[in-house]
Amino acid sequence: MTSTSRPDARACAEQDAKSQEEDLELASAYVSDAQYNRNVFFDTSPRAVRLYLLYNRRLAQVLLYFFILLDLSLALWEEPAVVHLPPWATMLVELLCLHVFALRLVHYAKVIPRDKFWKDPKNICMIAILALTLVDMIVYGALHAAGCYALRWSRVLRPLLLVNVTEGRQLRRAIRSIRNALPQILTVFLLFIFSILIFSLMALKLFSKRGLKTSEGAAYFSNYADAVFDLYVLVTTANSPDVMMPAYDASSAFALFFIVYILVNTFIFMSVFLAVVFNNYKKYLKEEVRLLVRAKRHKMARAFTVLQERPEDGGAGEPRVSRASWSRLVRSVQPDMGRAHTELLWSVSDDRNRGAVDKTAFVQLADLLNIQVMTLKSRPHPLGRLCPAFYRSAPSRLLCRLVRHRAFAVAYDVIIMINAVFIGLDEDKPSVAYSEWAFLVLYLLEILLKLYVTEPRSFFAAHCFWNWFDTIIVVCALVATVINSALQKSGGYTSRQILDIVFILRVLRLIRVVDRIKRFRTIMNTLIRIGPAILTFGQLILVVYYVFAVVGMELFKGKVKFEEEDGGPAAADCGNPLLRGSAFARLGYCKNNFNNVLNAFVLLVQLTVVNQWHVLSSGFSAVTHKSARIYFVLFHITVVIIIINIFVAFVLEAFFLEYTLDKSNLHSELEKKIEELQLGVAQEALEDNLVNAMETSDQEQPADPSESVEPKLMFKIASKRYRTVDALLQRLFEADLEQEDGDDAHDANGNFANPSFGSA
Amino acid sequence: MTSTSRPDARACAEQDAKSQEEDLELASAYVSDAQYNRNVFFDTSPRAVRLYLLYNRRLAQVLLYFFILLDLSLALWEEPAVVHLPPWATMLVELLCLHVFALRLVHYAKVIPRDKFWKDPKNICMIAILALTLVDMIVYGALHAAGCYALRWSRVLRPLLLVNVTEGRQLRRAIRSIRNALPQILTVFLLFIFSILIFSLMALKLFSKRGLKTSEGAAYFSNYADAVFDLYVLVTTANSPDVMMPAYDASSAFALFFIVYILVNTFIFMSVFLAVVFNNYKKYLKEEVRLLVRAKRHKMARAFTVLQERPEDGGAGEPRVSRASWSRLVRSVQPDMGRAHTELLWSVSDDRNRGAVDKTAFVQLADLLNIQVMTLKSRPHPLGRLCPAFYRSAPSRLLCRLVRHRAFAVAYDVIIMINAVFIGLDEDKPSVAYSEWAFLVLYLLEILLKLYVTEPRSFFAAHCFWNWFDTIIVVCALVATVINSALQKSGGYTSRQILDIVFILRVLRLIRVVDRIKRFRTIMNTLIRIGPAILTFGQLILVVYYVFAVVGMELFKGKVKFEEEDGGPAAADCGNPLLRGSAFARLGYCKNNFNNVLNAFVLLVQLTVVNQWHVLSSGFSAVTHKSARIYFVLFHITVVIIIINIFVAFVLEAFFLEYTLDKSNLHSELEKKIEELQLGVAQEALEDNLVNAMETSDQEQPADPSESVEPKLMFKIASKRYRTVDALLQRLFEADLEQEDGDDAHDANGNFANPSFGSA
Repeated sequence: MTSTSRPDARACAEQDAKSQEEDLELASAYVSDAQYNRNVFFDTSPRAVRLYLLYNRRLAQVLLYFFILLDLSLALWEEPAVVHLPPWATMLVELLCLHVFALRLVHYAKVIPRDKFWKDPKNICMIAILALTLVDMIVYGALHAAGCYALRWSRVLRPLLLVNVTEGRQLRRAIRSIRNALPQILTVFLLFIFSILIFSLMALKLFSKRGLKTSEGAAYFSNYADAVFDLYVLVTTANSPDVMMPAYDASSAFALFFIVYILVNTFIFMSVFLAVVFNNYKKYLKEEVRLLVRAKRHKMARAFTVLQERPEDGGAGEPRVSRASWSRLVRSVQPDMGRAHTELLWSVSDDRNRGAVDKTAFVQLADLLNIQVMTLKSRPHPLGRLCPAFYRSAPSRLLCRLVRHRAFAVAYDVIIMINAVFIGLDEDKPSVAYSEWAFLVLYLLEILLKLYVTEPRSFFAAHCFWNWFDTIIVVCALVATVINSALQKSGGYTSRQILDIVFILRVLRLIRVVDRIKRFRTIMNTLIRIGPAILTFGQLILVVYYVFAVVGMELFKGKVKFEEEDGGPAAADCGNPLLRGSAFARLGYCKNNFNNVLNAFVLLVQLTVVNQWHVLSSGFSAVTHKSARIYFVLFHITVVIIIINIFVAFVLEAFFLEYTLDKSNLHSELEKKIEELQLGVAQEALEDNLVNAMETSDQEQPADPSESVEPKLMFKIASKRYRTVDALLQRLFEADLEQEDGDDAHDANGNFANPSFGSA
Repeated sequence: MTSTSRPDARACAEQDAKSQEEDLELASAYVSDAQYNRNVFFDTSPRAVRLYLLYNRRLAQVLLYFFILLDLSLALWEEPAVVHLPPWATMLVELLCLHVFALRLVHYAKVIPRDKFWKDPKNICMIAILALTLVDMIVYGALHAAGCYALRWSRVLRPLLLVNVTEGRQLRRAIRSIRNALPQILTVFLLFIFSILIFSLMALKLFSKRGLKTSEGAAYFSNYADAVFDLYVLVTTANSPDVMMPAYDASSAFALFFIVYILVNTFIFMSVFLAVVFNNYKKYLKEEVRLLVRAKRHKMARAFTVLQERPEDGGAGEPRVSRASWSRLVRSVQPDMGRAHTELLWSVSDDRNRGAVDKTAFVQLADLLNIQVMTLKSRPHPLGRLCPAFYRSAPSRLLCRLVRHRAFAVAYDVIIMINAVFIGLDEDKPSVAYSEWAFLVLYLLEILLKLYVTEPRSFFAAHCFWNWFDTIIVVCALVATVINSALQKSGGYTSRQILDIVFILRVLRLIRVVDRIKRFRTIMNTLIRIGPAILTFGQLILVVYYVFAVVGMELFKGKVKFEEEDGGPAAADCGNPLLRGSAFARLGYCKNNFNNVLNAFVLLVQLTVVNQWHVLSSGFSAVTHKSARIYFVLFHITVVIIIINIFVAFVLEAFFLEYTLDKSNLHSELEKKIEELQLGVAQEALEDNLVNAMETSDQEQPADPSESVEPKLMFKIASKRYRTVDALLQRLFEADLEQEDGDDAHDANGNFANPSFGSA
């Protein structure tokens, strides 16, 4: 309703609805970018802004990721395939995917200025990937048609799509941090390799001439390359006592050589690797996050400039944003936000009740939007409305009290324990089989009783994870058990699959005990909190795995065969006479092959776990060439030494944070405000079952004004969750960043002098 | 010469030499305690102080540790023994050791007040250990004489001596920190165990009825206890792909179960363990170090009170310590300190040149004494003195310049590289055997040339580690090679032992390359810096290993036998028919037994490395009872989950420090002073070979005053070394402690109000 005016004098004449709308769109693009830490230098023309808002639509992003996954999953159908499809079919799908990516890229090119587009490496990479894939497809198609040998080498490029799409910024950041940390890692790595080389030389001189044999009867440390490989494997402890035994059997003193080796290379060097990776990764990531925070402030300042209006008394006062434009901005950025929630955010921003916010308060908005606030509302039980006389009778109220009593929870904990014992017993005994029905009934009864006490919509609120968990598990178990026993009765046939599902569901029910014990809950919460960040690592692992799987399939496909019909594992030579008598065949590793992408992934997981990787490696060297070891060593260095260490570092950092920090400033400000307005929900009430009596609604209906002003409306900060990974990262380094940001905030009234983030 | 006066008025009459001497002794006891962070509440009577100084003599401590090691090493001769000795012989030696420990304890009891003595748990522990050992020896002797079965159970207590002697304070601190961190670790551990139990139950239900067989033909997940054990082993990754293969062969989907299991339990839970152990250990250690710093200040304040004198003008000014008593104190605390070094410390303490130090400056003394300062002195070459005409001739000077040139070092690096290649070649070829002589001559020549250029005493200075290293290695190699070829020529006999030593020495020579490359040197320095602290972990490991070795020997001795004469490893059943066909025997692990303490230690190292520990564990369960697994799981939890994690945490912390902090305040103050006095040695000069032209002497002769005032005398702070582990620990937490200590320092002029550290 209040008109927003731009500081530009000429614009005064054009103050019409259209320009206002355009300003709002521009501002909301800035705010949304700030909220999700996007760093896109989009064109500020109204058309580009509208395109940009379209570009950032959730649906567009979901579709993009769907096509990326589709493109990646083509490996399932391409040779060597899980399910064979003709090459033209997979290539048609790939062409479709390429079209989608190209379209998305063109859309992006329309949004940002041309010179920015061509300067951005991720766009160049994207174009290169698309072009190379197309070339490869044409060449492959031609060669295939001519009946020549052809290789689809561009499949290696597919996972790079995940890195180079606009939305892959967390992944790009992780990779940049690794790249920056590489020189330091390399130094330690060289020293480590030097140490291995020296020890290998010593081992060669000490053992090669002694005529020792390994337990497999092979020569022991007979040449330098083998010695280096054996000792490299020893660093990973995979061949730990075996490699030492022949020398140890020959003389006890040789044990000392191996003990010193393990102390130096496994314990000390591996710790040093962790330290160096941890430290450097953290350092560069911190720097990145610092830039991110700056860019966010800068964006919010731009949004402020767009929406600001001079105070009535001429140009003297501070520029401000009025409540009306602020509200429209918030509604446009987050259309699903409840009115009460908006009011709350406004009251935090406009602390002194002046009806407008200045720049400093406005800049906070992006962070405020990222704090998840739950709106809780009490609501009467439907039974209480339908037949109040019955529901409020003395026996009914006694029942409610009973169900809400601690003893009820304890009783069910005991039942779960007893159930655990029964699950452990042999289910072929009829008594055990019948007991399962009894337990199912008991669990169903629990859910029904709880539903009797609690308002159903509150019971199944979004944040009541364990209620959902219980109900789904119990209902599924009921359905599966019924189907299973029906099948069993019908023809004595037991479907193994359904039985498996029944078993898994039964055991999963037991997990609920964890939530009952408070000291376990804190650890679980920390783990849940770092969950989204772990997803970034998941993507990183996926990229590396995919590349290695594709290369591995080209190198090793069909060399090792696994026949399902094959009887004893001892008899097998995995379809390759070269493997006869090898440890690989003897241990029954035939299914660890590269014959399709799923098997390859499982094999790579085994290599990540490290143990027995030397057996796998020597198996594949035996069927190809000794140099195949290089593939396995490279995988070990990339995944185990670098990526797993970063993963460990991240978990460490997250836990240290849990122990030291508590809440961000903004969090506590918001909480204070909630308390001031007497809208808070006591923490105890939440942890109690009482909270089930309230309903969470992020999508509260503003249509019913009588309800939203109800005093029973309450807020709670879901402080344990972060909407975006960036928010978690920022929080990880908040303690270190705060000082600096404080300095920034002082000149926040001026302009954010950071030229590198100025959008054209 | 200046008389020191105590503030006590009565003491004025007795100002004689004796009282002064006593004061000095008391003060030096305090300062020495502060310097080495001893926290002993000794009696302040002159007799007790003198006894206390005696108690802290280096020789007494060395003797004590010698007897502890002797006591521990008795396990070598006791049944099951490496070298058999009759029981009376070992018991006599043990009795001698007990006497020494008792004597030391009595000495300690004389030094500190009686009530303090009996309140200290370490003394009670010590008395209990001695008494229990004595009782055990008597009982064992009686039973042995009567021919009954007897058990020397008190051997388990022996390593506790290391913990409970006064000097074991670092070890006690580490153990206290672990004990305090246990509750937190336990919470994670319980959750971890719960997760294993749930997964095991699921595995039991999924796999037990499928009739699957392991590659060894055994039943697969057939009962719950085995399932739990197998999955516990999987957490350590020791049976990684093997345990999964039967299920994976049956259906690819089962791989998912194991992948989820490994992700949750190996990757996430093990990282959480590291995080929790790291965080808690650090927290409690920091608290301990904080108390330590306080106690140190308190001790220094006491020493100040003893030595202080009122200024001439009545009681108005601040109390001070005169230069004379300060010097006598320093000389008494550190008799081997050079006069120049003392002067330097004084000039740092008495910053404003007032001829006396106040309390704040005096308190710093303990830290100043802990900073290692090297005194460097230039000295002419003896050849230059003996035949100056020749040594200063043009060719000689050219030679010197050549040797000092970079190219000389590079040339020798190339020679080392070529040597590495030759070492790798087969030494049976005559050409290779002769080349070894050539390399020996080249290395000898290098040392001689360097000695020609550098003053010999400087060349072999204490801090020139690599010169010592080179010379020892080359000379030893020369001697060993000569002996070896003499033996070979004499009768064609080749002593394998000597040849082994020759080989090791040859390879060790190559290590020198590391020191030439700068980026490697920083890592090496950090590793060397944390060396002493790693020794504390070494002691901790020794204590745990010894206890487990003794228990293991009682449980498993003689069950598994290794016969040296036994030919093929495949044929063996390790002397026990129960092991026939087991993985233990097949892999040739017969020498991994508990038949003597050395074998037991090697076996425990293998268990620490973790890989194949399940084979060892099931081997020993097979020959005894399934419950033997408990021993192995307990060892895993104690050593791998707790102690190794603490070790990793310590290395991490030390490296983080290396990257963030640089120098302590006191260090830089001292360095500034050295620079001011123009006594510094440029860092470049040190890193260059030029430094070899100077001699390091910590034990400089103050007898020759003409030399010590020579302007060529120079200092350098050996900032990379710490005299005591406590100093390193303090430095580790310095950043966190500084704030608080700053507050302390403000009321340092008052009294140190810390009642718990007041000595009676």
